[in-house]
Amino acid sequence: MPSDAFDQTKTALLTLGGQRVWSLMVTLFGDLAQADGSSIDGPVLSAVMTEMDVRPEAVRVALHRLRNDGWIVSQKQGRTRRHALTPTSRQETLRASARIYSSPNAQEPGWQLLVLEDSGTVPREEMAEQGFAPLVPRVFLGSAASRPPKNALVLSGGQTPDWLREQIGAQMLEAEYSALLPILKHASTSLDSGTLDALQTTVLRCLIVHNWRRIVLRHPTLPRALLPKDWPGHSCHVLVDTLLNSFPRPSPDEILPS
Amino acid sequence: MPSDAFDQTKTALLTLGGQRVWSLMVTLFGDLAQADGSSIDGPVLSAVMTEMDVRPEAVRVALHRLRNDGWIVSQKQGRTRRHALTPTSRQETLRASARIYSSPNAQEPGWQLLVLEDSGTVPREEMAEQGFAPLVPRVFLGSAASRPPKNALVLSGGQTPDWLREQIGAQMLEAEYSALLPILKHASTSLDSGTLDALQTTVLRCLIVHNWRRIVLRHPTLPRALLPKDWPGHSCHVLVDTLLNSFPRPSPDEILPS
Repeated sequence: MPSDAFDQTKTALLTLGGQRVWSLMVTLFGDLAQADGSSIDGPVLSAVMTEMDVRPEAVRVALHRLRNDGWIVSQKQGRTRRHALTPTSRQETLRASARIYSSPNAQEPGWQLLVLEDSGTVPREEMAEQGFAPLVPRVFLGSAASRPPKNALVLSGGQTPDWLREQIGAQMLEAEYSALLPILKHASTSLDSGTLDALQTTVLRCLIVHNWRRIVLRHPTLPRALLPKDWPGHSCHVLVDTLLNSFPRPSPDEILPS
Repeated sequence: MPSDAFDQTKTALLTLGGQRVWSLMVTLFGDLAQADGSSIDGPVLSAVMTEMDVRPEAVRVALHRLRNDGWIVSQKQGRTRRHALTPTSRQETLRASARIYSSPNAQEPGWQLLVLEDSGTVPREEMAEQGFAPLVPRVFLGSAASRPPKNALVLSGGQTPDWLREQIGAQMLEAEYSALLPILKHASTSLDSGTLDALQTTVLRCLIVHNWRRIVLRHPTLPRALLPKDWPGHSCHVLVDTLLNSFPRPSPDEILPS
């Protein structure tokens, strides 16, 4: 087992920052127990969090918070507690998963440019949720697959000058992707599929998905025609996809030796 | 000869304002003596200007100014002076004529939207000269026949929401066209073609073209798809075209009885 490579990857991903325990747990439940009826037993949860260097006390606090927020329900089953997503959080998780686990090779849609009637018509946040990135006041770009707000002026995109790609790229978290990229590259070359046990695989997946989703969910999904040709987000996407396919999700019951 | 109707039209057009004598004379030369080698004799010029209520002294001052500006050359021919456009002013006149005398029924091109790289790339005046109207900073609309500046993002126009037509219409001199429209309507119903003599025809044409060009040259030519459905500029265009066709340009030599 190439534990050095695994430990290096784990440490690097944990060091990237933004690793709040409750947030890590949101990722874990999203990756491991998203399916309807799926849950994670207390001992499994403890083992995974310990492997990610989280202390038991911090796990308890995070669980408490997530239960209070209606994100997780916990039920006693004999002597163990089982933790599961609630119907609401499962739905939200599913929606985010469409982006987090999307294929980097999916058919590329075209793009469109919108002009809103005035700057107050639709708030910027709502436009971002609908998949549109701002270019100049009242003007937004997005995938042809995104639904434009009612009454907007809509034009189909064509050729894109380089300056447009750069201006859009500036909002597409290039620094964040550039920090993640070398870690993913190192992981993909140094880790052999089949060499990690179920617990390590769970941790590896959780940390990859966690660092990936922290970036990818903060910007709209734009067609590559709108992005700088060397945008690091795309390389990250390819590596995340490759790694998650090389290290498939274990079943929650096989993580701890029974 | 329905001199009442002619006088009413003449007075109404003269009253619209902006009738500087030198500018009226630019219009007159443009309408009457645009052709290469064409000129206007002093007595004809005096007769036309007098018919437009301009005093001889004002004509002399304007002629002096236009000669100084290189717009007009005057040559003695026996006892009369002949005035003509210079090669430069003829070229400029020809360029403006393409718009002033355009047919309102010309094939409608599509439209396009441009986004410039930054707000300093191309000055607004230059964009207007190229036929583009501003919509929001860095964003311009124009006919598909206009040539976009190098390196702009260019999108082909499609459906236009009403608010877009209104926002564009707001820059398209609706008030000015609305002031001209009733005069043109009155002229087209009250004046019978063939009832005016050559001098009156010359004056009528000059005043129509003058008031029309003062508006039409101040905004880019946009396809109707971009304009409010009730934009008065189009009705004016139709009437100007009808009137100029009903009262064809006399030859400069037939204006005064010989």
